Amino acid sequence: MKRKIFKISYLAEILSGELKGDPEIEVSNISDIREASENSLSFISNPKYEKFLKESHAGVIVLKAGSPVIPGKNLIFVEDPYKSVGILLNLFNDREISFSGISDRSFVSGSAYVEDGVKIGPMAFIGNNSRIGKNTVIFPGVSIGDGSIIGSDCIIYSNVSIYDHIEIGNRVIIHSGTVIGSDGFGFVTDQGVNLKIPQIGNVIIEDDVEIGANVTIDRATFGATRIKKGVKIDNLVQIAHNVEVGENSLLVAQAGIAGSSKIGSNVTIAAKAGISGHIEIGNNAKVGAKSGVMKSIPEGVIVSGFPARPLNEELRVKASLRNLPAVFEKLNEIEKRLSQLEEKEE
Amino acid sequence: MKRKIFKISYLAEILSGELKGDPEIEVSNISDIREASENSLSFISNPKYEKFLKESHAGVIVLKAGSPVIPGKNLIFVEDPYKSVGILLNLFNDREISFSGISDRSFVSGSAYVEDGVKIGPMAFIGNNSRIGKNTVIFPGVSIGDGSIIGSDCIIYSNVSIYDHIEIGNRVIIHSGTVIGSDGFGFVTDQGVNLKIPQIGNVIIEDDVEIGANVTIDRATFGATRIKKGVKIDNLVQIAHNVEVGENSLLVAQAGIAGSSKIGSNVTIAAKAGISGHIEIGNNAKVGAKSGVMKSIPEGVIVSGFPARPLNEELRVKASLRNLPAVFEKLNEIEKRLSQLEEKEE
Amino acid sequence: MKRKIFKISYLAEILSGELKGDPEIEVSNISDIREASENSLSFISNPKYEKFLKESHAGVIVLKAGSPVIPGKNLIFVEDPYKSVGILLNLFNDREISFSGISDRSFVSGSAYVEDGVKIGPMAFIGNNSRIGKNTVIFPGVSIGDGSIIGSDCIIYSNVSIYDHIEIGNRVIIHSGTVIGSDGFGFVTDQGVNLKIPQIGNVIIEDDVEIGANVTIDRATFGATRIKKGVKIDNLVQIAHNVEVGENSLLVAQAGIAGSSKIGSNVTIAAKAGISGHIEIGNNAKVGAKSGVMKSIPEGVIVSGFPARPLNEELRVKASLRNLPAVFEKLNEIEKRLSQLEEKEE
Repeated sequence: MKRKIFKISYLAEILSGELKGDPEIEVSNISDIREASENSLSFISNPKYEKFLKESHAGVIVLKAGSPVIPGKNLIFVEDPYKSVGILLNLFNDREISFSGISDRSFVSGSAYVEDGVKIGPMAFIGNNSRIGKNTVIFPGVSIGDGSIIGSDCIIYSNVSIYDHIEIGNRVIIHSGTVIGSDGFGFVTDQGVNLKIPQIGNVIIEDDVEIGANVTIDRATFGATRIKKGVKIDNLVQIAHNVEVGENSLLVAQAGIAGSSKIGSNVTIAAKAGISGHIEIGNNAKVGAKSGVMKSIPEGVIVSGFPARPLNEELRVKASLRNLPAVFEKLNEIEKRLSQLEEKEE
Repeated sequence: MKRKIFKISYLAEILSGELKGDPEIEVSNISDIREASENSLSFISNPKYEKFLKESHAGVIVLKAGSPVIPGKNLIFVEDPYKSVGILLNLFNDREISFSGISDRSFVSGSAYVEDGVKIGPMAFIGNNSRIGKNTVIFPGVSIGDGSIIGSDCIIYSNVSIYDHIEIGNRVIIHSGTVIGSDGFGFVTDQGVNLKIPQIGNVIIEDDVEIGANVTIDRATFGATRIKKGVKIDNLVQIAHNVEVGENSLLVAQAGIAGSSKIGSNVTIAAKAGISGHIEIGNNAKVGAKSGVMKSIPEGVIVSGFPARPLNEELRVKASLRNLPAVFEKLNEIEKRLSQLEEKEE
Repeated sequence: MKRKIFKISYLAEILSGELKGDPEIEVSNISDIREASENSLSFISNPKYEKFLKESHAGVIVLKAGSPVIPGKNLIFVEDPYKSVGILLNLFNDREISFSGISDRSFVSGSAYVEDGVKIGPMAFIGNNSRIGKNTVIFPGVSIGDGSIIGSDCIIYSNVSIYDHIEIGNRVIIHSGTVIGSDGFGFVTDQGVNLKIPQIGNVIIEDDVEIGANVTIDRATFGATRIKKGVKIDNLVQIAHNVEVGENSLLVAQAGIAGSSKIGSNVTIAAKAGISGHIEIGNNAKVGAKSGVMKSIPEGVIVSGFPARPLNEELRVKASLRNLPAVFEKLNEIEKRLSQLEEKEE
């Protein structure tokens, strides 16, 4: 990696932020507030870390506008520190893709259509009648099945498996080990034997989707499994056949969505949550970590638990659960008092 | 994909179904009842979708025998609509494997024994003294370790990893990214340091098993991890060392089975359930989604929850849980009434 | 596999154990106590299996010193039977790596530095400016990105994906399908659209780590995701960006750790447990299977449940939960008695 060095006055300018301190200071990396050296830019976006602020050695610290000035520290005040760090990370980013062109150690079918600027690494496989859009990068060991169409400016990392007849939009990023288009889990059990229901549909991934590592997205039984524009999927997520995920939704690690369910747009499904089959999650809904959603959820509702219920209900149940051992004591005490009264009556 | 078109009279005949409507109508695809066009065959197997029946544009709809006739619609009445759709999907299936023979871009050991009709894609690796049975298809990027034996008529999709000395039966389907034969998780902790227990057993997969994408099946410490005839495993399932899964059982996505446990035949383990180690699940038992099974389960029992208990017990507990906040109110009320009585007594 | 045969007197000697029985007996495999034949060595380490001892056909059985002698059986008494089996499994181990040298069907960048004794299988990819240490074995289909450094005596199984600029120590074992260095899940949502936070940090894996199959370990946003010396990770585990896992900790199958959390040393995180982001788990703590840990945990504490609490608290809550339906009956009974008393009063 090449080292990049910036003056903090330049960084303040890029962020449209207000600089307090020495504009001539230079930094060469971004660091955690606790680990920062004088060559580091650091930042506070989570208030949990404010306590480390005073003792940090960072060369400069990015803070939310309105935070108190700390004498002797170089500070840049901005509207949204986390978003600012996103901008700076792009600036400091020195990761490069070093292979170029189409490796003669890859296998590209004669009937595949490969547009300009595409990079295909060694050991990649591109099937018949497939199409790879402009400037897309295919890493080593990727397999793209017959008739699949990949858009332009995509990055497909090593050892991704894309089955046949899959459609992928533009600017899609797919991390290593992910599988798109495997058969949905469909069987008819007849006298104890499981007969396979062929899965002849496909998967459609729209523009600007990012998919993590070792994710599985099954093809539809018929029709399409569909991941809409701007969806972001974390590692090890399972998406079953005929699911639809709406625009800009976030699916966090190890979540799973069963067959034919429909997730709205701008939904968050937190880590390890499960969504059962044939239900609908409304737009802007949020599903808590480790929840199990058994019924459809209206727009904008936050649910948690198993079976999942509205968050405030779930919190009330969890709170009473903590007090449950006390209920038994209380009941015993009440019974005793009651018996005493009953005895007196007789 | 080549387009396939069928007369609905022909489809009724194939299904041994009763056709009501115009036998000359032709359809070219199978669709969801809500999305069907006049070129589509659709069907109702889940009663949830009956409400969409009347307004469907489907060219023909497959229904359960005995359902009411709908005037103006073309209908085929059959015993089991879902099973019928399985048959029709086979008919409409136009997915093909376009590579043939043994690619000169694959690596096949000189000591491997490859039977007639085998297809091996580019970038596949076939180790020493391994054996690939008749008509089996090995997709690109698959790795088959030394001494492993694959039966006939199998399909091994891209980037599957099969370790050494694994035995796989006939007509087995393995989806992309799945790993068979990795070392079991066995360590002895000695003075805080974890020493590896070598895993020298293997994995045996019997006939007619289907395994989803990114599944992991560990080899036995010694002896074999065994997946019996007709078992179907969904995506991202974990099967630890020395597990045995009985005939025709179904393991749904993201389930996990810990070491040395024995699953009976025709068992269903639903999504995200976990089975702890060294226990037995009886034949025909069912384990609910997200359950955690800590003790052996007798034949035919349905369990749910964590720790898993018989379903009706678990439902009773979950129901009382919902009413738990009310218990606290009730207790307060009772205490008040009790105090009033006590005061009167004095 | 070559067959290995040993006299039981020799095995007793290797284990520093005490042999009771015929020293001339020979065994050729290690078996489960229930499946052992006269050619098998077997053992009892889990008391659950003691009941199978008397009827076992094993040629010799390894037992804990102090266990009763069983007349007519050949027995070896040792301090720690499970550890002894580890030693014997190494002895019986006949799995071998048959490829050698650097396959001319692999792709090794001209700028990669490959030390002596390295084996690289067909279809492996080694990127620019990477480094592979002495005697390390790279299986077929592995991809190692630019600038990554792998130590000596490592084993990287087939189809593992290691991204760019990753650092891996000595004697590290990584099982198939695992992904190291994918981008962390970091997005800023701005007016409903998710903007990517570039992930420019890396992953550091220290010496003697073993990582199971289809595991995902994300690179840091900046700085490093760090897996310390001697950690053992089971299959399908998710480790998010900027996580640190302390020395000799064990992470069991399908567990997940969210971003920036810090796990101490000698911690056990059982199967399917989830650890939320930005928290700390103290040294020697244990997290139960399927738990969801929402807050930091001090050293040495055992927690369970969701939200996770100290084990004895959780057990008390779970026990009262089982009795919950009885609470409702009791409450009804108390109300009735109370009403009767109240009527009498009037």
